[in-house]
Amino acid sequence: MELSEYLDRVRKLNPLVHHITNYVTVNDCANACLAVGASPVMADAIDEAGDMASISSALVLNIGTLNVSKVESMIEAGRSANAGGIPVIFDPVGQGATDFRNRMAAEIMSHVSMSVVRGNMSEILSLGGEHIHTKGVDTGGAVEIREAEAIASRLAEKWKAVVVISGASDIVTDGKHHVLIHNGCPQMSLITGSGCMCSTLIGAFCGAHPEDPFGSAAAAMAVMGLAGERAWDKWGREGLGHFHMGILDELGRMTGESLAKGARYEEN
Amino acid sequence: MELSEYLDRVRKLNPLVHHITNYVTVNDCANACLAVGASPVMADAIDEAGDMASISSALVLNIGTLNVSKVESMIEAGRSANAGGIPVIFDPVGQGATDFRNRMAAEIMSHVSMSVVRGNMSEILSLGGEHIHTKGVDTGGAVEIREAEAIASRLAEKWKAVVVISGASDIVTDGKHHVLIHNGCPQMSLITGSGCMCSTLIGAFCGAHPEDPFGSAAAAMAVMGLAGERAWDKWGREGLGHFHMGILDELGRMTGESLAKGARYEEN
Amino acid sequence: MELSEYLDRVRKLNPLVHHITNYVTVNDCANACLAVGASPVMADAIDEAGDMASISSALVLNIGTLNVSKVESMIEAGRSANAGGIPVIFDPVGQGATDFRNRMAAEIMSHVSMSVVRGNMSEILSLGGEHIHTKGVDTGGAVEIREAEAIASRLAEKWKAVVVISGASDIVTDGKHHVLIHNGCPQMSLITGSGCMCSTLIGAFCGAHPEDPFGSAAAAMAVMGLAGERAWDKWGREGLGHFHMGILDELGRMTGESLAKGARYEEN
Repeated sequence: MELSEYLDRVRKLNPLVHHITNYVTVNDCANACLAVGASPVMADAIDEAGDMASISSALVLNIGTLNVSKVESMIEAGRSANAGGIPVIFDPVGQGATDFRNRMAAEIMSHVSMSVVRGNMSEILSLGGEHIHTKGVDTGGAVEIREAEAIASRLAEKWKAVVVISGASDIVTDGKHHVLIHNGCPQMSLITGSGCMCSTLIGAFCGAHPEDPFGSAAAAMAVMGLAGERAWDKWGREGLGHFHMGILDELGRMTGESLAKGARYEEN
Repeated sequence: MELSEYLDRVRKLNPLVHHITNYVTVNDCANACLAVGASPVMADAIDEAGDMASISSALVLNIGTLNVSKVESMIEAGRSANAGGIPVIFDPVGQGATDFRNRMAAEIMSHVSMSVVRGNMSEILSLGGEHIHTKGVDTGGAVEIREAEAIASRLAEKWKAVVVISGASDIVTDGKHHVLIHNGCPQMSLITGSGCMCSTLIGAFCGAHPEDPFGSAAAAMAVMGLAGERAWDKWGREGLGHFHMGILDELGRMTGESLAKGARYEEN
Repeated sequence: MELSEYLDRVRKLNPLVHHITNYVTVNDCANACLAVGASPVMADAIDEAGDMASISSALVLNIGTLNVSKVESMIEAGRSANAGGIPVIFDPVGQGATDFRNRMAAEIMSHVSMSVVRGNMSEILSLGGEHIHTKGVDTGGAVEIREAEAIASRLAEKWKAVVVISGASDIVTDGKHHVLIHNGCPQMSLITGSGCMCSTLIGAFCGAHPEDPFGSAAAAMAVMGLAGERAWDKWGREGLGHFHMGILDELGRMTGESLAKGARYEEN
């Protein structure tokens, strides 16, 4: 898998990525999308959600600040995307925190076929109705990684989707192939939006490679992780505000070549 | 036309600028407003949109993330502003993308008299029901600029409003007078919110010069373009995140004097 | 009162702070929350607002961009927090600007017991139905400070809440004890979100010290003021964009020790 080519193609094709997402991190998502060469659009009215999806190259559904009418728009947009063969990326933010959130996420999943589902370990486990029998949900340790990969693989088959579990190392699997991405740094969890931007980038990459959600997701996670670690190296001494801006700097500066040099991953 | 005096007056009068706008770029709009010396307020509930408009010095309506109830609030606020002689600025974000968006924009325009309508070429053409018979909608070439000016002029007369078309050079016309603003840099389109901030600044400038929307719009576009080019000169080597912050830096640092030195425009 | 210990405890306990807040400054609030060691969550659907509050350590209600359904969610979340003994912080943004806003703020206050109410002078006066008989509402002068403290003290007793009035010096009182915080700089009012971030930080500090909203509010105001003045010292020459990021830098870098060195306050 040559991740660099994925980024080059996004910059070349400039896919339009429709988002129905939360209002907390939406500005970062739009800027991250632009920084890698895609174009963002955010439109959540039920009256146009489907039409907007139909002219887009990918659709990102993020339930960070969900409500009943937003969920209706997500389902409308998702169906429209499914009908047009447009990849849909699902980010079940906060899954597990409330019954309402769990019900809405299940409702969306029951109506829309996802190309990629991305979340952290606890969100994905909760969405899949899975329980992990180890201490905590960290993906750092070797044992946990193998168990987490097995679960991700099972859910990928169940959902017929690529599953991405973000963590110290990111797990990406379509049920048959697996890749572990080792880029990133722990400080990324100290700014809001790191996860949401990952889902946006997966949307951008899927928009340029609709036939290959697995490679797209892997490349997007490597790009985000690499941007994060480079930004921390450069701006971490200043602090979190500059680090935040630095991530967008690095996303914008990254080329296929610099990605190839910095990406650290293992396929298995 | 002495653009520098417009900026000095905004800083002196500190006009209150009411916005009903999208949730993607709203933070940038509020900060841009403050940076040039105006005060932002954002209130979109139908229950107070009209009251808030009536105590403001200008009203900015931006349909980036519109829905039916937001449009009702826009019309309520717009009528209130019209009744009080308060300038209204309309930014038809994404006009042309969906039927719903087109219908809503037309609905707003049919109920509210605008002082200024600002968008990019395709948005303004679509809003005006115009078609341009050249290759593409770029305003860079000499021929296209003349045709674009003619269309803008026609729409300005039709709408009885100042029309601003953002592009490589910005067209500003009230149907009789024309000014081309040459400030700005292409990288401004790589961050979200450049256009929305233009509309906010036009609101701030109109709020301080309600009798002169043409000069206000021209000055605001020069301020935004100059801030963008200066920010890119200074922060472009770091990347898009720092460039984004740099635009707000430059808006805040700009004085009438530094504007006079940097503004590049031609009246005709 | 040893403010440094309050910050150390937030970083140690990592409280979850639920927000129902405006979409203008919500990203800054989330990042400010993370920067001091707390975790933000924003969920405003009526269907989950109460459940989310019940699993949080503090609840922040901010009416910046309110509407009727958001107010219903605020009341639901507030009742849930009250039932669970979870501190509620109220930020009456824009109180006094419209009748609707005044009615809604009164409605919220009538259904929810607040631990802390924070606003600027005019917001707090308006919320309390108070009138100040001096020139203007600045809290800079010695006479005004004493009168403002007396009013704040009266309102604290009336509301059975800690009252915080932000200004050149911040007044914090529970009706019996008073502290004046002298940190901060006037440029903080040139970026949007300074006030909202104060309320978020009060939420974070109350979440780690639910038994002590007075000390929590005082510590949070000192932290925000100190971050602001340090960020201006460092980034003010660049401008408002970098200053904005600098505030988040300083919030993230601040330790109990550096707070102890920089906090300037007087108890009386």
